[in-house]
Formats: sequence, C-alpha cells, structure tokens
Amino acid sequence: MTFELTILGSGSALPTSRRYPTAQAVNVLERFFLIDCGEGTQLQLRKSKIRLAKLNNIFISHVHGDHVFGLFGLLSTFNLLGRKTELKIFGPQALKEILYFYIQNFTEELQYKIVFNPVDGRTKNLIFEDKVSEVYSFPLKHRVPTFGYLIREKEKLPNIRKEAIEKYNLGVKDILSIKEGNPFHFNNKKIDPESLIIPSSKPRSYAYCSDTAYYERIIPWIKGVDLLYHEATFQISEKKIARQTLHSTASQAATIAKKAGVKKLLLGHFSNRYAELDSLLKEAQSIFPESYIVEDLDVYSVPENK
Amino acid sequence: MTFELTILGSGSALPTSRRYPTAQAVNVLERFFLIDCGEGTQLQLRKSKIRLAKLNNIFISHVHGDHVFGLFGLLSTFNLLGRKTELKIFGPQALKEILYFYIQNFTEELQYKIVFNPVDGRTKNLIFEDKVSEVYSFPLKHRVPTFGYLIREKEKLPNIRKEAIEKYNLGVKDILSIKEGNPFHFNNKKIDPESLIIPSSKPRSYAYCSDTAYYERIIPWIKGVDLLYHEATFQISEKKIARQTLHSTASQAATIAKKAGVKKLLLGHFSNRYAELDSLLKEAQSIFPESYIVEDLDVYSVPENK
Repeated sequence: MTFELTILGSGSALPTSRRYPTAQAVNVLERFFLIDCGEGTQLQLRKSKIRLAKLNNIFISHVHGDHVFGLFGLLSTFNLLGRKTELKIFGPQALKEILYFYIQNFTEELQYKIVFNPVDGRTKNLIFEDKVSEVYSFPLKHRVPTFGYLIREKEKLPNIRKEAIEKYNLGVKDILSIKEGNPFHFNNKKIDPESLIIPSSKPRSYAYCSDTAYYERIIPWIKGVDLLYHEATFQISEKKIARQTLHSTASQAATIAKKAGVKKLLLGHFSNRYAELDSLLKEAQSIFPESYIVEDLDVYSVPENK
Repeated sequence: MTFELTILGSGSALPTSRRYPTAQAVNVLERFFLIDCGEGTQLQLRKSKIRLAKLNNIFISHVHGDHVFGLFGLLSTFNLLGRKTELKIFGPQALKEILYFYIQNFTEELQYKIVFNPVDGRTKNLIFEDKVSEVYSFPLKHRVPTFGYLIREKEKLPNIRKEAIEKYNLGVKDILSIKEGNPFHFNNKKIDPESLIIPSSKPRSYAYCSDTAYYERIIPWIKGVDLLYHEATFQISEKKIARQTLHSTASQAATIAKKAGVKKLLLGHFSNRYAELDSLLKEAQSIFPESYIVEDLDVYSVPENK
C-alpha cells in the first residue's frame, strides 16, 4: 500500500547542475499525481522510472517559469506516446492561457483531452477525489496567485474480525453495515462494535507548500500531516530578502512544521547562492528536529499509520 | 584559435534518459552561438561549463517543441543572472509570437533586450557577421518552415613575411595594402606577391541540418565544410516513415555528406526506437566513412586548416 513522494526537482528559479527546477510526483496506492512541472520534469520522470501513462492529474502551484516550463515538453511527449486518456490539470486561472497557447502553437494534432480545472479560493478546498485519495488546495502567500496542495488517502472502512464473521454468521450485507458504523444485533442483543471490527489505519497525508512567504494561515490546513514539503529558499541571515520576494527561510519553514504538528519536514527550493546547505538544515532542525534537505530523485515513503 | 562544437542535446522529439532534445553550442574564437534550444538546454550548458554570459546569438531551426522548449527557461535565467547585453534570436517568423508570449506572461521585468531577426528565403543568406565570423541560413525540407545554419570563420588576410618587411622596409600602410592583395613596387619594380606573404589558413566551417528530409538542394550551400551535422532520425529500413515525416535516414545523411564533399559527418536526432545505433552508424559509414554518432556533451574541435 504505497504512499510515496518522489522529488523530481528541488532547485529554485536558477537551476544548478545538481538541482532541477521544482517538480514532484506523489504515488498514492499506484495513483500518480504530479505537482509542479519545471523544465526537465519529463527527463527526471524517465530517470525515476515512473510510467508516464500513470500520470492523469497535474497540480500546478503558480505560474512562474521554474514551476511550469516543463509542461509543454511533457504534454508533447504524452501525445507522441499515443496517450488517449484524459489529462486533468489543476492550477491558478493564469495557467489556462498558457495551455491554450501551447495547444494552438505546438500540437499538430492533440490525441488526448486536456481538462483544465482552475484553482481558486481563500481557504482549503477539496478539488479532486477518487476511490482512495483526495486532493485539497489552499492559498499560499507569494507574488502571484499560488496554491499549496494536500494529498491524502481517504478514510478507510474498518475490517471485520474473522472470528466475528464466524461467531455471528455474518453475510455481505451485515459486514457492510457494520463497517459503515451501524449498530449490530444478534438474538435481539446489541453487540459491542469493538468486538466486531479492526479499526483501519489512519489515512496518510502529504502537504506541499511552495512558493510562499511565512504564512501562519496554512497551519490548520496542514495540521498533523505525515509529510510536509515547505520551501526554504533562504537561510535566516537572508530573511529580509525572503520577506521582499515572498519566500521563506529554513527557520520559518520549521516553525510552520512545528506549529502544525507534522511528522516530518522536507526542505527544498533553495536559492542557488548556497553551495552547501548545512547551516540551513541546522537552523531548521534547531526548531523542528525532523527536518530534512531533499535531493533530486529522492524517494520518501510514508509507512502505514498504526 | 578555437573552432568547437558542443552537443548539448542529440535526441529527437521523445527525449531519453541519455539524450536531451536538440541543442548545440558553437565556439568560434570565443564567440558562442547557440543552435536550437530544446528542453533542458540551460541545464546542459551548466554541465558543459559554457558561460551563459558569452551567448549573445541564438539560431533556431524551426518551431517544433523539441527544438525550442528550452528557450523560456534560458531567457528567464539570463534575466535572473542580471544580463544587460542585447540578445539576438534568429529563426522562422513563427518564433516571434512565441517570444512575445514569453515576454508577456513570464517576465516581471525583462532587464535586457531581445532582438528577433526573422529568417526566411529560398536560398543561402548571410544573416550575421562580426569581425571574425559569419552565419548563413538556408532552407531545409520539413513539415514547417525550417532552416539550416552555416557558421564559418571569415576569410583571414595573409601574414607578411618577416624577411619581406626588413628587405623592403615596409611601413604599416604598405603592409595593409599588400595584405589586401594590391600590387607592390620597389625601386619601380613589381615584386612577386608570393615572396611577400604567408597565405592565411582556409576558414573553418560548420553546417547544421536538422530537421530535414533528404534534400539535394542544400549540397552547394554546405559544399566542403569541415564539419557537418545532419539529422539521421531513422535507419534505412524505416525510409518510408522518414519520407512521410520529412526526416532523413542515416544513409541519406551520408549521401548528402559525400555529395557535398564535407570532411566529417556527425549524426544525431535519433528516433527513440533504436536502443543501439550500430547499424545506423554502419549504414552511414558504408557511404561516407568519416561518419560519427554524437553523444550529449560531446565536443568536436576543428583544427586550423593548413
């Protein structure tokens, strides 16, 4: 039961020879979600061995080049590979024109449907769901309309204890009814539900926050996630530049992680001015010990919650 | 006196994990020309250690994604690096709208000037020159307006023999006049120019032909170049697909090289259907022995002609 994040690019606006611009893939039980699509994303996807045919939903945080310049190439590659499956793209309204321009200028014949879903709103919104997963958008604080995304497993129904099935001779209807939390009677006696079920594991969740200034409004929206990616473009000594450009320092990212009570914090989107990131990591860990620096092609698996 | 080609990307429309989409850099005596700009070009430039500040002229063959999707990222990076120097971009008329769209949608404030020079015409045209180099465009045969480029050193003036300077007590004016090929008289006697000069080396030249069907019209335009890059998307067994898609086979590329009497042929832009390229190389070498398969980040130096 995979719940896995692959870092495709962790650089900021100026890519380096080690860090591609921003892109990530999230695997929720073999559904793949792409978040942002900086230049070279399709090349990184090839290296990561993620099958392009499994990507049906793309979430774009904002229309700055380092988060979208890989879209045109990826969309063309889908076409050349003979894609027929509809592709959903979520992102701020400004993305619509970009996609329209692409289709007008770069597709001889587009063989699959691109459905654009504008993301908007001043709070957390459910924007996607299927049988097993949900995706929420929430506003971030940047120079253009920008959204973070929360991806989580759906609440799972509990399992029925084997011995209960035998003891009460439960049929399919009974089982479904009990799973859904309805009371169960046997010989006119109400049976304690705890004796019938094994509670399901807590749904796993991942939140993506890039690009953004320090923004406390997001705390309730990302409360308690298993994994949080928060941009850390600057170290604390550059907090003035961070404020001016509406980016965050590593300390600010760690403060958000701490206040939101997340389990693990991943830092990325580093300014290319830092040749090494030790001090950036240290300042984050002094506030939130479970802080990590991501590298391109890193994979973070979230184990099932007990 | 460098004359050097760097392969930045040698793949075709579908990049692979080994081959980026098309891009090349040509260094003519430390002037750098970029030819085509597929996705990831700026990342490859970083790996190749070519200084971005040295790139002042970009030549685009045609407006297909695998030859231009790296432009937006490169132009943004120039801006972020504080570029002030004007950038000239040459390419088919359709590129103008692409550049305009970029400037409208992706630049908060463009700090340098982009000058677009449309390339057109049914024959070979001089489109750029500076003190030491010339660039010519010529039409290729593809599904959209497409141009090849010929980059060459300028004809150099001969050097004056040291012993002649002493013997005839030559001044600056005399030297320039003799270099330019004017007759020289000493004591009313016409001196044999051969005794005065050391002829300069023959200018080096490089021709780029991608994407194109087999197209014999280009032969006189690229006659005798030191280095020819010709696309070889397919091997001869796929010549029907080559004809349909207006691409070339390796045999066709080699035939052009042979008929044009070039010194060395570089093959690239391979279809991703070929896991290995041995048979493609063999078919080219059977027609034109000096055929080579390029790899990304290969560097080809052209020595001075004697």
